Amino acid sequence: MTRSLLSLLSGIALLAIAPCVEASGIASGDWVVRTDLWGTPAFSTLTLASEHGRLQGTFDGDALDGSVRGRSLAFDVADADGQRSRYEGRIANDRIEGRVDAPDTNDRNARAAHAFSAWHVPPRPPGGPRTIDFAPRDFSNTWDADRAPVLVLWPGDTVRTKTIDSGGVDEHGVTRALFGNPQTGPFFIAGAAPGDTLVVRLRRLALNRDSADSLDSIVGRAIDRGYAKETEGLGKPVRWTLDRGQGTARPSHATGALAGYTVPVAPMLGGLAVAPGFGMPPMSTGDSGRFGGNMDWNALVEGNIVYLRVQQPGALLYLGDAHARQGDGETSQYALETSMDVTFSVDVIKGESIDLPRVESPTAIMALGQAGSLDPALGSATAGLVDWLRKDYALTTSEAAQVLGSAVQYRVANLAGRSVGVAAALDKALLPPSRHVVSARADK
Amino acid sequence: MTRSLLSLLSGIALLAIAPCVEASGIASGDWVVRTDLWGTPAFSTLTLASEHGRLQGTFDGDALDGSVRGRSLAFDVADADGQRSRYEGRIANDRIEGRVDAPDTNDRNARAAHAFSAWHVPPRPPGGPRTIDFAPRDFSNTWDADRAPVLVLWPGDTVRTKTIDSGGVDEHGVTRALFGNPQTGPFFIAGAAPGDTLVVRLRRLALNRDSADSLDSIVGRAIDRGYAKETEGLGKPVRWTLDRGQGTARPSHATGALAGYTVPVAPMLGGLAVAPGFGMPPMSTGDSGRFGGNMDWNALVEGNIVYLRVQQPGALLYLGDAHARQGDGETSQYALETSMDVTFSVDVIKGESIDLPRVESPTAIMALGQAGSLDPALGSATAGLVDWLRKDYALTTSEAAQVLGSAVQYRVANLAGRSVGVAAALDKALLPPSRHVVSARADK
Amino acid sequence: MTRSLLSLLSGIALLAIAPCVEASGIASGDWVVRTDLWGTPAFSTLTLASEHGRLQGTFDGDALDGSVRGRSLAFDVADADGQRSRYEGRIANDRIEGRVDAPDTNDRNARAAHAFSAWHVPPRPPGGPRTIDFAPRDFSNTWDADRAPVLVLWPGDTVRTKTIDSGGVDEHGVTRALFGNPQTGPFFIAGAAPGDTLVVRLRRLALNRDSADSLDSIVGRAIDRGYAKETEGLGKPVRWTLDRGQGTARPSHATGALAGYTVPVAPMLGGLAVAPGFGMPPMSTGDSGRFGGNMDWNALVEGNIVYLRVQQPGALLYLGDAHARQGDGETSQYALETSMDVTFSVDVIKGESIDLPRVESPTAIMALGQAGSLDPALGSATAGLVDWLRKDYALTTSEAAQVLGSAVQYRVANLAGRSVGVAAALDKALLPPSRHVVSARADK
Amino acid sequence: MTRSLLSLLSGIALLAIAPCVEASGIASGDWVVRTDLWGTPAFSTLTLASEHGRLQGTFDGDALDGSVRGRSLAFDVADADGQRSRYEGRIANDRIEGRVDAPDTNDRNARAAHAFSAWHVPPRPPGGPRTIDFAPRDFSNTWDADRAPVLVLWPGDTVRTKTIDSGGVDEHGVTRALFGNPQTGPFFIAGAAPGDTLVVRLRRLALNRDSADSLDSIVGRAIDRGYAKETEGLGKPVRWTLDRGQGTARPSHATGALAGYTVPVAPMLGGLAVAPGFGMPPMSTGDSGRFGGNMDWNALVEGNIVYLRVQQPGALLYLGDAHARQGDGETSQYALETSMDVTFSVDVIKGESIDLPRVESPTAIMALGQAGSLDPALGSATAGLVDWLRKDYALTTSEAAQVLGSAVQYRVANLAGRSVGVAAALDKALLPPSRHVVSARADK
Repeated sequence: MTRSLLSLLSGIALLAIAPCVEASGIASGDWVVRTDLWGTPAFSTLTLASEHGRLQGTFDGDALDGSVRGRSLAFDVADADGQRSRYEGRIANDRIEGRVDAPDTNDRNARAAHAFSAWHVPPRPPGGPRTIDFAPRDFSNTWDADRAPVLVLWPGDTVRTKTIDSGGVDEHGVTRALFGNPQTGPFFIAGAAPGDTLVVRLRRLALNRDSADSLDSIVGRAIDRGYAKETEGLGKPVRWTLDRGQGTARPSHATGALAGYTVPVAPMLGGLAVAPGFGMPPMSTGDSGRFGGNMDWNALVEGNIVYLRVQQPGALLYLGDAHARQGDGETSQYALETSMDVTFSVDVIKGESIDLPRVESPTAIMALGQAGSLDPALGSATAGLVDWLRKDYALTTSEAAQVLGSAVQYRVANLAGRSVGVAAALDKALLPPSRHVVSARADK
Repeated sequence: MTRSLLSLLSGIALLAIAPCVEASGIASGDWVVRTDLWGTPAFSTLTLASEHGRLQGTFDGDALDGSVRGRSLAFDVADADGQRSRYEGRIANDRIEGRVDAPDTNDRNARAAHAFSAWHVPPRPPGGPRTIDFAPRDFSNTWDADRAPVLVLWPGDTVRTKTIDSGGVDEHGVTRALFGNPQTGPFFIAGAAPGDTLVVRLRRLALNRDSADSLDSIVGRAIDRGYAKETEGLGKPVRWTLDRGQGTARPSHATGALAGYTVPVAPMLGGLAVAPGFGMPPMSTGDSGRFGGNMDWNALVEGNIVYLRVQQPGALLYLGDAHARQGDGETSQYALETSMDVTFSVDVIKGESIDLPRVESPTAIMALGQAGSLDPALGSATAGLVDWLRKDYALTTSEAAQVLGSAVQYRVANLAGRSVGVAAALDKALLPPSRHVVSARADK
Repeated sequence: MTRSLLSLLSGIALLAIAPCVEASGIASGDWVVRTDLWGTPAFSTLTLASEHGRLQGTFDGDALDGSVRGRSLAFDVADADGQRSRYEGRIANDRIEGRVDAPDTNDRNARAAHAFSAWHVPPRPPGGPRTIDFAPRDFSNTWDADRAPVLVLWPGDTVRTKTIDSGGVDEHGVTRALFGNPQTGPFFIAGAAPGDTLVVRLRRLALNRDSADSLDSIVGRAIDRGYAKETEGLGKPVRWTLDRGQGTARPSHATGALAGYTVPVAPMLGGLAVAPGFGMPPMSTGDSGRFGGNMDWNALVEGNIVYLRVQQPGALLYLGDAHARQGDGETSQYALETSMDVTFSVDVIKGESIDLPRVESPTAIMALGQAGSLDPALGSATAGLVDWLRKDYALTTSEAAQVLGSAVQYRVANLAGRSVGVAAALDKALLPPSRHVVSARADK
Repeated sequence: MTRSLLSLLSGIALLAIAPCVEASGIASGDWVVRTDLWGTPAFSTLTLASEHGRLQGTFDGDALDGSVRGRSLAFDVADADGQRSRYEGRIANDRIEGRVDAPDTNDRNARAAHAFSAWHVPPRPPGGPRTIDFAPRDFSNTWDADRAPVLVLWPGDTVRTKTIDSGGVDEHGVTRALFGNPQTGPFFIAGAAPGDTLVVRLRRLALNRDSADSLDSIVGRAIDRGYAKETEGLGKPVRWTLDRGQGTARPSHATGALAGYTVPVAPMLGGLAVAPGFGMPPMSTGDSGRFGGNMDWNALVEGNIVYLRVQQPGALLYLGDAHARQGDGETSQYALETSMDVTFSVDVIKGESIDLPRVESPTAIMALGQAGSLDPALGSATAGLVDWLRKDYALTTSEAAQVLGSAVQYRVANLAGRSVGVAAALDKALLPPSRHVVSARADK
């Protein structure tokens, strides 16, 4: 079962008495609040402004009223249903620690108390969008809403960073993390909140070493049981040689008919995610979902834009598991796993929410459906694409059906994970103009 | 349950007495035998040579021995297990009518008698491959092994013909057959037998009228139930205008954001099949299988080659259900249904059998998996492609796995039928040379 | 594509002139009309009454008007849309042969002519429901709407007959038909028409020989690929010994841990169907659908009632492929295949149509969903059961949801065919009274 | 990607010098070691015996050799491949803290250092199996290998405890935890290690309050899209009244045809799990897998035995999410959710590993397959059952196939989660004797 937390996290109340005012405005600004609900964290966006000891602002969008005196603050907030919560805490070192008295999760006439903490989101540096070099020191093996951000970004910012390979090995051949798709991040994007869309432009994906590791597997899901006997011995490591000058890859020790097998590289990110939403524990970076994740989709290449539904304050962007190249579906379980130099920029579309991960290339729009088998994944992808056509291209469902019937393309993103991915795509050249010109927006 | 008919259709026996010889060699040559097994027809290939009243030859590849006297003939044949059958019949007007005494289908020690008939396959006309104009007079709404061929072709022959649209309407707007994908054919390809591969080169697919009919549907399978409410009113007819000069199509009455929607045509055949194998009754031309059928796959375009596993003597090729264009999966239930001018040539690869329909384009090889849902269809497609790589490209399964992992592409052929279709494809430019140079062969 | 035939098969017209009346009322009564639509038969129910040379009655429920003179008749009929058809024919030996001038299938302003024939359904014999012994002489390997009925039954009639095993072998060990589930029938149930429900009560299913044939297979669909290697040698014939006195079965040659394996018999019909609807060619008796068919569902046992949606005039009931016993899903590809003595009775619920096959046992109601994979089959079964609860038990969908959530049981009917079957069941003891008391009706 | 940790966690080495011996044997006994691998914990079983300063014992089964001096210890261990690891730590308060120098996870010639800690498993109390009353104080919303055990049990022990409902509400109506199936536990079962099977006997499941909460939903997966429109308004809360005296449940406010709807209760546990294995982060208690979890399977009732594959030292058993009753598949999303008094006992089958969750009832054996859709779940269940027949019933695969074909039963466990569950079952009365008499073992 799943229930909304809405009732718990807001409320209006009597104004807290605040005879002695805050000395230095230390409460003012943006905070990310972490409420501990019997061990499960809930994250909220808090914006405070204090004047003469009175606190005003919003808590997840709901108006609050309160007071601050010295390092102590208190405020009350009510949700749309009139359910009130009261927060009381103490400020120290850009953090607040305190307790909230909130409606019970099951019985709105009862109350429950929970501890909360908050960290202060620094204000945007002056001077407009920045380009930041970020050298990761550690890596996350989970998509985790409760991991401290490595960097605070603002819409328009660009980051130059690196990812290590799925085995945890960096460009120097040094193991830096545990295998299983360790990720760089999370990046906190200031201003992003649930209900928004995160825009990630993949500006540069560049190989930074001369080898990749793969297997000679065919994942069970990708081939029917008639071949089970033939595939029994497979699963052995295959080292690939990357020629960064030529932009090609070849199995290093290929012989026989495969001796000349050389393919162009097509560097991509296997993993790109925002933190999963409320109630979701840290998820393995081998898993994926509506939040993105280990999509292992060969559309995440340089020049393309990824759109994800923001699930948590600041979005908390992770990326990693780069592949020098990957066939559809990552049928070999490991693609050409390698480390990568990655440059990306971020943007936020406020107040517009999408159901599914999307990718926009210079020539196509694509929606990704993910599910436990291909049929529902494809159905979901189609719905995501129809949604896009209706909202951004002003088509009716009937018109969208005509476009799909004459032009939709389906691609298999991933067959190697717990969920499979199918993408539904359309050629932008066939479509009417989109009301969103995201490319330009992301470019500035 | 299903059992092999092998036991039934052959046998060796004592030589039949033949004191008075055949006058004119009327028994000699190739025959297609139809044996009536309690109402189910079985088709066999019979090759006879008579000399001085003695008959020799083969019956589905097994040696036979017998005699002919006047218009009466008799022969015995045994299969590899030594099961004998005796055929006795009478020749008249290029037909044989008679009875066979064969092993019982369940008890090899018992015998059963069945009626049989045979028609004489004319000898190949002199002068090498021909180009034949064929104007169909009627159309088949079933894939049927028991329908009289409209034409006997030989490997290398080319046919110029026409197909009507899925509603039975020809290029003049005249209803010529019942809706439901009526097909042109069947064409009997002399020399093709079960165990061979039929090669069909689509030399020309040309629109021959100015309109196509479609729907504004999204088939249930293509979109998830979250959209069920939105798609409820859909399914209405949509007329498309075809501009044969420009090579474009547009919804004739589009308005609003769809007003300028114009797409290039990409003429294709929705239906192309050989007759289904032994024991299969005539199947609806809305259905598909290993024999091809209503594949509704947008890879069946001009310039591509289709390979099908021969299931019956002469293959019995059908084609129809042309589309001016179709998105992946025929999500609108009807694609842009129209009539077509079709030129194709046929060839036979003797003694090489493939499991699944294949298509070869100038740039890619593709295997089609079909099943009741996408997962097994995709698994089947992969197996078909691995099979191809192993047999024609001399790759081991391990090597094929490396090629797939780095380069396989999946395409959704059809979502609108009882079976769905998924194609696994590879770029020929990446592959080593094929030991088959079918293009050349088909071209001669 | 699929289109309704409604437009084609009816129409009103000017009254045909009929100066010389029919001598003997030979036109009066019920007829089954077979219209040949470019090779595809369409079947209709015609009821005629003649008085003074004027013909009145109905054609598939639409009123007709016409005339008869001597052995010639003509009538006109219009459908709800006002589309008119004119039939003209000649009566001889309880048959009519003629032609119909009907609206074109594609263009309602155009006309098309088709040949038709009709056979006369004899009137119900006096004396109420009968019990008829029927010894089948031949058997059908297809579910075929175009096969001549072996017997005309009326609602309430009971038939005592026999089925042969799936290999075509009867109770004396004699091969009587080709393997592949040859069926007894079809039985024409007078009065049954599309839109009605056929009720088949399985009164007695009795073994009539001492052996059954099975395999040691596990069908691929039933076991995951991890076991593919283990199951490779399987598929060998297994003879079972049936002890009709004890009512048990055992593998005849079992050794080792299986030596004592003995199970109670549970005789069932693997096949039970009405003829498929308009446009469906004869289907293999290995296939199944909404019309029933090779359901291979172990709920078709003595004492249970089967409900099927009537698709063609007279329903055309087939039955066969009896099993001495079968685990869920017929995982061994062949169950315990044997011949059977079968007693059944038929009834018709006029004007009530069901979507899916249903079975009612003394203790449960069950709806069968069939599809290309288990997920849609189960979804279909649930819908069929909810439908039943809403119509016969007067539950709202919300109430049905509560009943399902607390009490639904799912059973796997069949895993061995092209379609799989899943049944959704409810214990009758938990349910409110049904407004249909079919048991009593079928019993009279 | 996923790699084995085997290489990392063991190694032999030179004996550490240990001139000054351990004073009090504080190192001796069983320990659970937690190694921090760049943030991901790995758990191991360590058994130490010290004599005159020399340490011997095993680390996950591999022999170790080392020394202890005062509170400092050091030991070396090698795995089967000869990869050596060296542990050095300090003992305090029944804990060890230290570091391990181990082979690199990617390069066996390189080394990596990790912190580790260990806790001391107390020795088994004298006097044989105990019955322990355990009142839970807090609850876990994740299946978590890194959560401190609430109790250490030994094989044969019995626990009397309580579970709260899926919304976090206890038998007094008090919210004790966050909604989403909060669990009681984990219980550490001393002696259980990966490679063993945990046996959980459900001795008593007793309702402890008079109401349950459900919904009037039909989960999307359970009903086909044709019903999407009908089910749109559903999902509303339904309160059920539980009559503990009568042992029945009814919708508290039912009217109309549902007014008299009363069903027997059948108390069950929706959740029962061991901690997931290495590399798996804490998983939502809404999820399930090979480790058990939110199986929502109505076979987990009083009197039945559950078998789970141990994934971590001590197994770490969780249980919760009790239902007063549930139809197959939990189609209503919430079953009859309620709190429960639970008595269970535990046992361990050493050295025998099972692939899938199993349940044994007094009359049947059942294996549970879980996957992203029903087809692979069923295939997995069959494989699990065949495995059981082969290992415990000494059947060959051929014999198992014959048993399945004649007697297997499939049940749908769960349709409401990310994974679906299908159980394959056999009647024990039909089977030969099992070589395991687990019931007796678990009973002692």
